[in-house]
Amino acid sequence: MPQHKKMNNLEDLFKDVLMDLYDAEQQVVKALPKMAENAQATELKQSFKEHLEVTRGQITRLDKIFKEMKMPVQGKHCKGMEGLIKEGEEVIQEEMEPGVKDAALIAAAQKVEHYEISGYGTARSFAQALGHTEIARMLDQTANEEGETDKKLSTIAESHINRRAKEERAGR
Amino acid sequence: MPQHKKMNNLEDLFKDVLMDLYDAEQQVVKALPKMAENAQATELKQSFKEHLEVTRGQITRLDKIFKEMKMPVQGKHCKGMEGLIKEGEEVIQEEMEPGVKDAALIAAAQKVEHYEISGYGTARSFAQALGHTEIARMLDQTANEEGETDKKLSTIAESHINRRAKEERAGR
Repeated sequence: MPQHKKMNNLEDLFKDVLMDLYDAEQQVVKALPKMAENAQATELKQSFKEHLEVTRGQITRLDKIFKEMKMPVQGKHCKGMEGLIKEGEEVIQEEMEPGVKDAALIAAAQKVEHYEISGYGTARSFAQALGHTEIARMLDQTANEEGETDKKLSTIAESHINRRAKEERAGR
Repeated sequence: MPQHKKMNNLEDLFKDVLMDLYDAEQQVVKALPKMAENAQATELKQSFKEHLEVTRGQITRLDKIFKEMKMPVQGKHCKGMEGLIKEGEEVIQEEMEPGVKDAALIAAAQKVEHYEISGYGTARSFAQALGHTEIARMLDQTANEEGETDKKLSTIAESHINRRAKEERAGR
């Protein structure tokens, strides 16, 4: 059940953003094994598996932040991430040549990364404004990890996935 | 109706990405006037209005790309953007002090920007791999505009919106 408590100040909004991110990460944890399963290139499969571990670490970091903020560990359903995960599921279901599917999986995963880069960036900026310096540092660490994952996915795509996708049935 | 044609190569996927972006931009064009209407700070209201104009220019740029690719100008429903717009609508509907609502509107808008940064980044990378150099340049231009809008929103938030949101009913 969504909470309909009035948000009176930035602290209320900050808590709301944390609950949104918590739910978003739970959705990512469920989606990543399916992404890994459907990836063809070993490097991409491995990258999704590694990101699952990183995501679990980010959830642990959020747990600490909730404790620090004296909040119950609780998510708030994140519709934004729901839409992005649906896009990823469409990619898994659509009929594509394997190399094309890898390129499409990377595109879907990068949208998820960008959602989190933006969400953690906002949370960090709120934490700073509120004077929660140590929490801001932790959120910054996660934002940086998401940025690194995004760059790594670009590198994988541009090093060989896109080229392979281009060559699939090139002369069809 | 979504198309269920098999995607055989990167060119097919590139066209699909363009149709997704086209639909996403149409959703943004509908949402921005509501965001502007609900913003309190003049600077933020103005920023949403300006971004509406920029978005219209980006749609014109996509029109040119569709023509260049010999594709009908047609969108494909973008579920990712749908979820992000729903998040923005929740912000508009939720009861918040005005300064808090501005901070929340910025957070929602930055998620939309990041969706587009990611989507146009993917499209540019596909265009480059396919040798569509001029199209890649146009997509890069849009990706940069989205990046600038994102930075501008951060500056507005950090210059005074977050502080004002913090002070709303601070002692409640």
